[in-house]
Amino acid sequence: MEIKRIAKETTKVMISYLTYQAVRTVINQLGETNKPLGFWLHNFSTSERIKDGEAYLNDLLEEHQELAFRIMTVREHLAEEVTEYLPEMVCTGIKQANIETRCRHLERMTQVSTAASDANDSEIFAEDEDDTPDDIPAE
Amino acid sequence: MEIKRIAKETTKVMISYLTYQAVRTVINQLGETNKPLGFWLHNFSTSERIKDGEAYLNDLLEEHQELAFRIMTVREHLAEEVTEYLPEMVCTGIKQANIETRCRHLERMTQVSTAASDANDSEIFAEDEDDTPDDIPAE
Repeated sequence: MEIKRIAKETTKVMISYLTYQAVRTVINQLGETNKPLGFWLHNFSTSERIKDGEAYLNDLLEEHQELAFRIMTVREHLAEEVTEYLPEMVCTGIKQANIETRCRHLERMTQVSTAASDANDSEIFAEDEDDTPDDIPAE
Repeated sequence: MEIKRIAKETTKVMISYLTYQAVRTVINQLGETNKPLGFWLHNFSTSERIKDGEAYLNDLLEEHQELAFRIMTVREHLAEEVTEYLPEMVCTGIKQANIETRCRHLERMTQVSTAASDANDSEIFAEDEDDTPDDIPAE
């Protein structure tokens, strides 16, 4: 039940994010074919407005229907191209990030404990020097 | 090339979002098993802090190592459970959202044009009344 809710919410976030990426793609394309329109779309697409992809598209439809339709087509295309790689990339990415975070933490902990025990180290090593293993052959 | 960049950026956003969902899950679990700790984690996990999942986990590791490890385990589990449904849910979701947005826009356009042409409608219908089809049998 919880997984179902999280899957639904994640889907919503993904759709909004791919809408944002579609807007960026169209702005880049317009930068090469129609600079003034690209500039207009850039100014229209404030981060505040683009937060909610659907509301953004509804606003844009009022102002420039053709651009809104174009962004809708691009986001559909992006979804088809990008999502198939996501399951593996996200799972691997999280596993990798977890390992790196654990390693960094372990390094920090080791440095802290090394610094803290520096004062005692000489005594320990002094004892260690006497503690030669008995099972090493004399020759 | 562009698709590869977008896939990478989307993966990063997804990982951060699943970290947020893992935090919510752990806060909910603690609400039933250890309310004071749940309250502490809730206060620690400000939206500003949680924006960057990795930075958040590094901060939490300094404050409460056990909770950080737990959240890392939960986000790994969530990724495995949730991502397999995402490609279909996102593609279908975007197609559905596009259709609904187009329909709403069409409805608005029709209402606007209906309102604008209301004045002319009576004349058009008056002409229509005379324009009876010739191929309807008399009986």
